[in-house]
Amino acid sequence: MAVDVERMRHSSAHVLAEAVLKLFPGTKVGIGPAIDDGFYYDFLFPTPITNEDLPAIEKEMRRIIAGNHPFVRREVSKEEARKLFADQPFKLELIEGLEEGTISVYEQDGFIDLCRGPHVETTRDIRPDAFKLRTIAGAYWRGDEKRPMLTRIYAYAFASKAELEAHLKMLEEAERRDNRKLGKELDLFSTHEEAGPGLIYWHPKGGRFRVELEKWWRDEHFKNGYEILFTPHIGKSWLWETSGHLGFYKGNMYSPMTIDEEDYYIKPMNCPFHIMIYKNSTHSYRDLPLRWAELGTVYRYERSGVLHGLMRVRGFTQDDAHIICTPEQIEDEIAEVLRFSLAMWKTLGFKEIKAYLATRPQDSVGEPARWDQALESLRKAVEKEGLAYEVDEGGGAFYGPKIDLKIKDAIGREWQMTTIQFDFNLPERFDMTYTDKDGQLKRPYMVHRALLGSIERFFGVFIEHYAGAFPLWLCPEQVAVIPVAPTFSDYAKKIADELKKRDIRVKAMLSDERMNAKIRDAQNQKIPYMLVVGQKEMEENQVSIRYRDGRQENGVSFERFVGQVLDKIATKALDL
Amino acid sequence: MAVDVERMRHSSAHVLAEAVLKLFPGTKVGIGPAIDDGFYYDFLFPTPITNEDLPAIEKEMRRIIAGNHPFVRREVSKEEARKLFADQPFKLELIEGLEEGTISVYEQDGFIDLCRGPHVETTRDIRPDAFKLRTIAGAYWRGDEKRPMLTRIYAYAFASKAELEAHLKMLEEAERRDNRKLGKELDLFSTHEEAGPGLIYWHPKGGRFRVELEKWWRDEHFKNGYEILFTPHIGKSWLWETSGHLGFYKGNMYSPMTIDEEDYYIKPMNCPFHIMIYKNSTHSYRDLPLRWAELGTVYRYERSGVLHGLMRVRGFTQDDAHIICTPEQIEDEIAEVLRFSLAMWKTLGFKEIKAYLATRPQDSVGEPARWDQALESLRKAVEKEGLAYEVDEGGGAFYGPKIDLKIKDAIGREWQMTTIQFDFNLPERFDMTYTDKDGQLKRPYMVHRALLGSIERFFGVFIEHYAGAFPLWLCPEQVAVIPVAPTFSDYAKKIADELKKRDIRVKAMLSDERMNAKIRDAQNQKIPYMLVVGQKEMEENQVSIRYRDGRQENGVSFERFVGQVLDKIATKALDL
Repeated sequence: MAVDVERMRHSSAHVLAEAVLKLFPGTKVGIGPAIDDGFYYDFLFPTPITNEDLPAIEKEMRRIIAGNHPFVRREVSKEEARKLFADQPFKLELIEGLEEGTISVYEQDGFIDLCRGPHVETTRDIRPDAFKLRTIAGAYWRGDEKRPMLTRIYAYAFASKAELEAHLKMLEEAERRDNRKLGKELDLFSTHEEAGPGLIYWHPKGGRFRVELEKWWRDEHFKNGYEILFTPHIGKSWLWETSGHLGFYKGNMYSPMTIDEEDYYIKPMNCPFHIMIYKNSTHSYRDLPLRWAELGTVYRYERSGVLHGLMRVRGFTQDDAHIICTPEQIEDEIAEVLRFSLAMWKTLGFKEIKAYLATRPQDSVGEPARWDQALESLRKAVEKEGLAYEVDEGGGAFYGPKIDLKIKDAIGREWQMTTIQFDFNLPERFDMTYTDKDGQLKRPYMVHRALLGSIERFFGVFIEHYAGAFPLWLCPEQVAVIPVAPTFSDYAKKIADELKKRDIRVKAMLSDERMNAKIRDAQNQKIPYMLVVGQKEMEENQVSIRYRDGRQENGVSFERFVGQVLDKIATKALDL
Repeated sequence: MAVDVERMRHSSAHVLAEAVLKLFPGTKVGIGPAIDDGFYYDFLFPTPITNEDLPAIEKEMRRIIAGNHPFVRREVSKEEARKLFADQPFKLELIEGLEEGTISVYEQDGFIDLCRGPHVETTRDIRPDAFKLRTIAGAYWRGDEKRPMLTRIYAYAFASKAELEAHLKMLEEAERRDNRKLGKELDLFSTHEEAGPGLIYWHPKGGRFRVELEKWWRDEHFKNGYEILFTPHIGKSWLWETSGHLGFYKGNMYSPMTIDEEDYYIKPMNCPFHIMIYKNSTHSYRDLPLRWAELGTVYRYERSGVLHGLMRVRGFTQDDAHIICTPEQIEDEIAEVLRFSLAMWKTLGFKEIKAYLATRPQDSVGEPARWDQALESLRKAVEKEGLAYEVDEGGGAFYGPKIDLKIKDAIGREWQMTTIQFDFNLPERFDMTYTDKDGQLKRPYMVHRALLGSIERFFGVFIEHYAGAFPLWLCPEQVAVIPVAPTFSDYAKKIADELKKRDIRVKAMLSDERMNAKIRDAQNQKIPYMLVVGQKEMEENQVSIRYRDGRQENGVSFERFVGQVLDKIATKALDL
């Protein structure tokens, strides 16, 4: 029988608490839920523990598990519960928040925990070799920084040893690929706490990546019928009052700056600016659909604790667009956006993509008929592309349904990137209209969409997906030229200049370091091709190629090499 | 003898005041200086006047001029001056501010004005047909909004009738080319008072221009050895305190926004961010020069009264770069920047360029030897390029000498665009260093430079220079396809699709409007080529071309047309 892994994780948390109480009597227990890759439990220890204590706790847990103790559920009255947990103040607090008649406890091996369940049958259903205590961390009781700081013990837990090992390997791999680590090693970007955390500084090599990416992004958008706008980064409070952001989005916006005694906000979104352009003139149904895109840099508040390399930042550039169209056009437009998005992900080397469709929540704006049509167009588009999808019933924003796309990276992690989001709110608030065939003023549909999502976060995912070894066309440096000895520096320089002339990005490594040091350096920098040149190459107008992936090829005609590289760049090939 | 036009303008102002006092007795007079294209005088009228009153005043002025009255200078004591201007409160106020022994008055035709002079000999030295009263405007006494509002009468005045007429013609032409007017007619950009004045919204067609311009700008920068950075738009107060901007530049900066109880400022400059990247690692003389460019959008305060279309804005994108180099490299680097800048202006179609060299002011930072070397490198670069230049002695910023380039537009106006500016301040403040050959830590030279200056202002100048008829490669729409009748719409569409495939920007005009209306529309939109297609064109695979400049060519093979267009785009030709 398949093990219910979540149940197993939750039961493991109870075993953890039992083990802690045995080893550290007097500990007060908080809560211990299952999480994505394991479980945790929060404790108030009589004296602080460290990560050094975890092996002993783990050992005790395995001992308990081996005891094959059943998990026994019992429903209790509030009064009885209070007695059971008389010396556990956190549990007592939880009990006060529960309704009479809904309280249950689980007991194993004499340890009783307040719990809704469900659990596995006995402790033997927990695989003793498929969990691992990970680390301790501080966590406020109930997430409230005014309440006591507890010690959280995190654990990984899976249905099998193999899965645990695969997960640990994935984590190790993730650490090796960490965008912050590679960002430093490859000199791609930096952040500067003293000048403001969560703000990305793109170094020359990161900048080169971004220039190439954006060039392609713009070309593709033009080809797909988009037009490109540029709008300001600040707008007067009038704009944000009209859009409603000062109501429903204020917590994510920075405090205003004052200009001529009026409040201006740095933009958290581009939409109101695009709408101002729309409203700058009247529109006929003949002008629609409009597909207006912008690489718009927005600033949003994130708590400093959650900022994380390129993945979670305070300023980022959305590859944003707004589609403004008639009801008759909406189905085709949505299908087009989805097709376009998938085509872009394919070029970028991501193949496993899953859709998440979020429908109407309880409190929402907009006519039900429009919600239905919008949702239908989203569903049809997903089905047309044959994408796997999940439906999050009621999970849409108050202003419209949406599809999010999650892409799977090289080590199996899912990242939410593309979003296609209807908006029934802003067209009303800004009174957007077009004149239809019948001469009547009508309300257009408006769709927000971002394909990569944010350029910064995309770069983070991309760095980690490729472990810094980018596809050739996006490499800041595409070819390194390395003379076997200083006497061949002139020839190396000639080769490098020739490559530059053909618009190939080349690094001529002409310093007086040794050849092998240069090769190692170029390899560390993930440069796709290293051309090693010496006597033979010079005489025969050849190059010897060392590929980033370890392959070698000697005595290749220079022209053949150039042709091959230009072809791979032009076709945006993923291989070398 | 050449007339001293400034003297003539100033004397004309006195004549204006005399005429006003004759026609409007009881008027109180302010001051009346010469200005760039004429003169003005400020008055407090007993009852308000309008522009309708100007012809009568002009007539009276001509009458006075014809009288051949000498301008007579007299030095007077403070006491005497007070008596002379007993009924002129503004003059009395001015007299109080003057030192005894320095007070002079000028008298013509019985009218006495408090004045340092100099003036022309007699009123007949003023050309009666070379001036023209222009308009009235409100002006606070002494520019202070707490003092009375006076009525300023502006006049144009030149040394000859021909010059006045040329100036009026230029102004008319300037009005026809006004970037605000053409921006609207060609649907290039807008500003929105209610969302914040002085902030530019680039519409799809303006956006297309900008995308093409920036693509070229980036390509040229890469070719010229630059690397491209992207940096945030906001920085914590620490950054601006360190840079000194919160001291010497605060008046141009917006008020701070608060994030996690710290002040952040939206950037008025990109330099501190580039320096943060420089300081992110150590540097050897081998790494220099660095040429780091960014299309960085900055925000600076301008009074709302001076905001003007694209020319004077509150947010703009600098085509910025910083060159960081050793003293040995500075001369070559400056020569390179100047050469690069001139090459760019040439491609853009500007040929008349003048340099303005600003030297060390009294209060300055940085070693004198470095100022000398810097100035020398600027002078040599200008001379090497054979540019005309003027020297503004002591006119440099406190932190370094600079060259500004002014370009002359199609109607003779000069616009200051390129700036190449040394900075001896920031490298000190941020303690920027590099390790020299001798192993010593040294201070690099740092040069700010912007070639176009600001993309927004450049666009304004470009629109006015070309009156909206841009060179082909920068046209948002390059070809219009117009069927002679609806039956040829399919062929027109086929032609348009074919052009699109060749990356030519095409507008297929397939509505049911008449052909002539479409041609007029395309002409108004300054589309370079209109392809008119009918029976003959369809049968012979030809097009008939109407050029934006009025030329026509019939029966041109479609392939030949495409070849010609692609060639002109590739070479960035200025002609069609």
